[in-house]
Amino acid sequence: MAGSGFGTNFRITTWGETHGAGVGVVVDGCPAGLPLEREDVQKYLDRRKPGQSKYTTQRKEGDQVEILSGIFEGRTTGTPISMVVYNKDQRSKDYSNIKDIYRPGHADFTFDMKYGFRDYRGGGRSSGRETIGRVAAGAVAAKVLKELGIEIKAYAKAIAGIEVSKDHFDFAEMNNNPFNMPDKEAAKLVQEKADQMIKEMDSIGGIIECQITGMPVGIGETVFDKLDAELSKAIMSIGSVKGFEIGDGFEVANLRGSENNDDFICVDGKVEKETNHSGGVLGGMSDGSAIVFRAAIKPTPSIAQTQKTVNRDLDNVEIEIHGRHDPMIVPRAVVVVESMAAVTILDGVLKNLGATMDNIKKIYGE
Amino acid sequence: MAGSGFGTNFRITTWGETHGAGVGVVVDGCPAGLPLEREDVQKYLDRRKPGQSKYTTQRKEGDQVEILSGIFEGRTTGTPISMVVYNKDQRSKDYSNIKDIYRPGHADFTFDMKYGFRDYRGGGRSSGRETIGRVAAGAVAAKVLKELGIEIKAYAKAIAGIEVSKDHFDFAEMNNNPFNMPDKEAAKLVQEKADQMIKEMDSIGGIIECQITGMPVGIGETVFDKLDAELSKAIMSIGSVKGFEIGDGFEVANLRGSENNDDFICVDGKVEKETNHSGGVLGGMSDGSAIVFRAAIKPTPSIAQTQKTVNRDLDNVEIEIHGRHDPMIVPRAVVVVESMAAVTILDGVLKNLGATMDNIKKIYGE
Amino acid sequence: MAGSGFGTNFRITTWGETHGAGVGVVVDGCPAGLPLEREDVQKYLDRRKPGQSKYTTQRKEGDQVEILSGIFEGRTTGTPISMVVYNKDQRSKDYSNIKDIYRPGHADFTFDMKYGFRDYRGGGRSSGRETIGRVAAGAVAAKVLKELGIEIKAYAKAIAGIEVSKDHFDFAEMNNNPFNMPDKEAAKLVQEKADQMIKEMDSIGGIIECQITGMPVGIGETVFDKLDAELSKAIMSIGSVKGFEIGDGFEVANLRGSENNDDFICVDGKVEKETNHSGGVLGGMSDGSAIVFRAAIKPTPSIAQTQKTVNRDLDNVEIEIHGRHDPMIVPRAVVVVESMAAVTILDGVLKNLGATMDNIKKIYGE
Amino acid sequence: MAGSGFGTNFRITTWGETHGAGVGVVVDGCPAGLPLEREDVQKYLDRRKPGQSKYTTQRKEGDQVEILSGIFEGRTTGTPISMVVYNKDQRSKDYSNIKDIYRPGHADFTFDMKYGFRDYRGGGRSSGRETIGRVAAGAVAAKVLKELGIEIKAYAKAIAGIEVSKDHFDFAEMNNNPFNMPDKEAAKLVQEKADQMIKEMDSIGGIIECQITGMPVGIGETVFDKLDAELSKAIMSIGSVKGFEIGDGFEVANLRGSENNDDFICVDGKVEKETNHSGGVLGGMSDGSAIVFRAAIKPTPSIAQTQKTVNRDLDNVEIEIHGRHDPMIVPRAVVVVESMAAVTILDGVLKNLGATMDNIKKIYGE
Repeated sequence: MAGSGFGTNFRITTWGETHGAGVGVVVDGCPAGLPLEREDVQKYLDRRKPGQSKYTTQRKEGDQVEILSGIFEGRTTGTPISMVVYNKDQRSKDYSNIKDIYRPGHADFTFDMKYGFRDYRGGGRSSGRETIGRVAAGAVAAKVLKELGIEIKAYAKAIAGIEVSKDHFDFAEMNNNPFNMPDKEAAKLVQEKADQMIKEMDSIGGIIECQITGMPVGIGETVFDKLDAELSKAIMSIGSVKGFEIGDGFEVANLRGSENNDDFICVDGKVEKETNHSGGVLGGMSDGSAIVFRAAIKPTPSIAQTQKTVNRDLDNVEIEIHGRHDPMIVPRAVVVVESMAAVTILDGVLKNLGATMDNIKKIYGE
Repeated sequence: MAGSGFGTNFRITTWGETHGAGVGVVVDGCPAGLPLEREDVQKYLDRRKPGQSKYTTQRKEGDQVEILSGIFEGRTTGTPISMVVYNKDQRSKDYSNIKDIYRPGHADFTFDMKYGFRDYRGGGRSSGRETIGRVAAGAVAAKVLKELGIEIKAYAKAIAGIEVSKDHFDFAEMNNNPFNMPDKEAAKLVQEKADQMIKEMDSIGGIIECQITGMPVGIGETVFDKLDAELSKAIMSIGSVKGFEIGDGFEVANLRGSENNDDFICVDGKVEKETNHSGGVLGGMSDGSAIVFRAAIKPTPSIAQTQKTVNRDLDNVEIEIHGRHDPMIVPRAVVVVESMAAVTILDGVLKNLGATMDNIKKIYGE
Repeated sequence: MAGSGFGTNFRITTWGETHGAGVGVVVDGCPAGLPLEREDVQKYLDRRKPGQSKYTTQRKEGDQVEILSGIFEGRTTGTPISMVVYNKDQRSKDYSNIKDIYRPGHADFTFDMKYGFRDYRGGGRSSGRETIGRVAAGAVAAKVLKELGIEIKAYAKAIAGIEVSKDHFDFAEMNNNPFNMPDKEAAKLVQEKADQMIKEMDSIGGIIECQITGMPVGIGETVFDKLDAELSKAIMSIGSVKGFEIGDGFEVANLRGSENNDDFICVDGKVEKETNHSGGVLGGMSDGSAIVFRAAIKPTPSIAQTQKTVNRDLDNVEIEIHGRHDPMIVPRAVVVVESMAAVTILDGVLKNLGATMDNIKKIYGE
Repeated sequence: MAGSGFGTNFRITTWGETHGAGVGVVVDGCPAGLPLEREDVQKYLDRRKPGQSKYTTQRKEGDQVEILSGIFEGRTTGTPISMVVYNKDQRSKDYSNIKDIYRPGHADFTFDMKYGFRDYRGGGRSSGRETIGRVAAGAVAAKVLKELGIEIKAYAKAIAGIEVSKDHFDFAEMNNNPFNMPDKEAAKLVQEKADQMIKEMDSIGGIIECQITGMPVGIGETVFDKLDAELSKAIMSIGSVKGFEIGDGFEVANLRGSENNDDFICVDGKVEKETNHSGGVLGGMSDGSAIVFRAAIKPTPSIAQTQKTVNRDLDNVEIEIHGRHDPMIVPRAVVVVESMAAVTILDGVLKNLGATMDNIKKIYGE
């Protein structure tokens, strides 16, 4: 069943395997007239590129994107934008030893059971490299949103239990450490932990938080296609994400109604909320506050320690996964989270255009 | 934009407002030949019916379902199953005082901003009563799944911070307390807490957990339509849910790869996992273990305490919400979670039918 | 597989069997703020109601619609509009003789093969009565379109080979004959033919033409979701329709490019076409001219003559279909064609809202 | 709005402009385990390649396809198949003279109105070159269908009013003339006509017929997603198609029920129809007979004669379109029709897999 597309009015379809010819995306439904050039997309891809520090995979990929359609004289034309990144440094031989073995924590076993066989090289379609298409599409969506005053920022909120502290939170700091952590002190502790993990041939997980500001009120449909439900699917569809929460999230289980409700207040003729426990969404629709959500990211499943597993002949065997793997997924997943949020929000924005007769008449009015 | 439908191959479309004529659902894509009678659906609805204890709203609704189509001589025909529950005890006057006021924690404000006005009676479309359609559809999906050996069980895992203990866990106990809690001792503590809340005109939240057993391996698509992503959207689309996690969920942020990976082992010619940190899903596909997920439920936003808010004229005002509200949402939401899980799993099962040429030939083979 | 829904941004889902409890539709995605009352829908349904003349089935159905949701204080709220018509005069016993026999020209055989069995009463889901949901939804769509200046008019262009003549064409005349024919003379000839058919226990087919005026330019997507492609699916999905053509349709096969091209001309600062061979669509997008399409309608398959066929036991048998059937389908299908056109055009209009950055900024601009 | 995708369970998304970097398609939902190599696709593309005779455009394009994903060790893996054909002989300068002018019969005007501007080079996205993606996808679908015993054959049935005669019909003859016409005599007459058109700087239209054999009974959904409705949309979405009919098509308007009904007969334990007026579909579902449909193709709108039109400044101007255009569209459209039919039928086949509980149990049975 077709399952490589996301979104309705703004729809992206990704394709590609990590050791095939390349990976890419077709972006369908992008409004016409958006100034867009290769560099807009490239700078997003550069944020997820491998080999940026010793804490990410040492695979050498320039990850240079080519835009094959949908742009004319520097602007989007309203037709599909096809983007491709050809694979370069594939080293397929690295993976021949896992050809017939199911790596714990990976999709090898389920892939084989579902499809009868699999492209075993580097995880094939289930590799993190699949997210290149998401990020290229996200770059386009984010640029549309920026023109509407909507901005999306994700960052590492916690890695291996080390949290960004409210007191030291500083967006600018994100670019000064290899972890995308907006807290200098926390990043230092994470670095120590990461060095230790590499030594111990182990890996660590963490939490990514994302803030979306400048939201109009009313984006999101009221029942199944609630904005938070769509965001949840978008984020949970990223490999390695095991949880999603918005606003106070799981903490609401311990709050009273009187604590969790956000009082409304009118300030200078504008309705605001005194707090933001809701995370910017009420009844599935954006409420004008910042949207704040978090994703739980599991530790990289590929570790060099000896693990017990099973092979295709159903023998119990042992496996050690050497190769070029990130000791943690969080830093490179930050821009993927941001991208999927951008795609989701833009789709919601477009869906909302026809919400009222008044809106429609603004466009077909004359 | 249409947003009241869920699912692709098995698709449900709900409709209705809490104080309109009724609420209902159209179930499209149910396989033909399933024995189905009104009672199969009614017993699901009875589990979410109001007025079952003093801890749920005292609104009197028999919630008797009528099946209007899609069944012939006791079996599904493959055509849409339309089901309706007419509203009886509507007491619209209860809500006239909130006609022009935005209740904190509710969708009143966002509804007005999105659509220009709203059916203010009891929350209109955003009332919990909307879930009747989901539960009726879930009853049908669950019956199909049962014939395939798949069973879904949800329960209150925690309310107001009081958790079910592993030692006392007993499914049978769920029916002996008004909270759907599979732990006699925990339920007692919750009851005390709930009595206190009623006295203090406040409300409490909690966590619902859901287990799905008997899953074939390979259900779920590999990229955007991952099984956990679909489940996440399904569950987050239920009003009041603020978080979703699968397997170890947010706890993975603190685990090492060596701890979080589930080793495979072959037992009697069958591949199993020694642990189930993954929650039954690997790479977006079911791995044959039990699927285990949790949803965070916020406390009922309607509380009788005085709250600050804003009215349609943008005056700062105060509000006290009297009426017939549940002091907690968790107990009645249990069957809603179960229902949405059933709909999602069945849709995934149907999507998977054409995964391989071999499958297809099994059906078109002769 | 779910197949009872149509449209994306404006989506309708129909349900119901001709001898079940009733038939209906859920309209999802209708913009909020449209004045709508029961009578708006009823007058469309009255146009397809049985028993209006001796040339349509004598089944007695008031076909009174109930609107169960989505309207508040006389206006649409943006939530799903559920509408139902309960079946009254069902006479199921009429059909017991065809329980095990496959009527030629009907869906009995294919239904049984696909689903294993069928609701044999009166064609079940495949009865023309299924179109009630389409017409109710079409009434809503047409009302939205009217507010945007778009009008849709269908009529019988030919019945049994008797064509409306260009010289006598008069829309007003449609209501003066039971055939929805805008030509007094042609209608008279059809009446004679119809009387003869009743005597001879036979039936006749015809052609419905539809004109859509007031179209903005640019409605329709450029590749698969071309406006004419969507219209084609909408119309071909009506039972008994065997062909669809737009503009000069099949006649283009005999035209030269120099004949078939419509020259553009600018009149008073407005671009027009000197002719309308294209039928109002260029490259899948509306071109501002009237959209003109035609549908070929087969003769009613239920005839009282003796026919050869097969029963469920695969015996070769004979069948005579008595009962209350229309000797021709065309007259009552006119409003169904109009309704499906309205649904399709409105969906196209809503899809087009986000075509350009400029459009989007008109709505999110302030 | 996204509109470059087609199909649900088997979904194709095309992209590309005629004078951009290339054109392509992503095929999502192809079952795993199908033997597939580049040559399978290339031979379909070769059938629509330009420059094959003087009756088709002289543009020189090798149209060599590259498969970038979804195949491993010679078989489909179940993941998206991305295919691309890079543009070579683009000669953009040919089109500078039409940059600001709206060609009659083309999408120039509607494109500009919808999107505010357009890629004017050679029709951009609305060029016939867009169909390369469709044909590549169709080659894949056709190969799946062939394994199930389903075969699809399209051919030119009439060009410029010259029809294939029943008496001379010979499939083998198709490859002996440049028109894909299965009748030697008719092809000769067409050739004379075509030579005349080239001299007169004009163009001609025609009719393509398509036969699908080996269909299982019951493919197609019963209401909106009828098989003939889906086919109709698929075919009408091909540029230049102005009409679609199935079985007797528009001729049914002149038939009586007693003539148009196909009697069933049981032969050797198999239900057959004595005639095939229905064209292989009853009630939207395949009935086991050959599916037979026709498409009306308009004459090429690009002609070298002087035509009147309008430019972007709304001046009335004259235009002569020189360049490399086909004097007729029919011959190269034959494989496009076949391809869209294949995609539609396969999608229908996959949708039908879950029609009954019995089917489902065949797959999840053990």
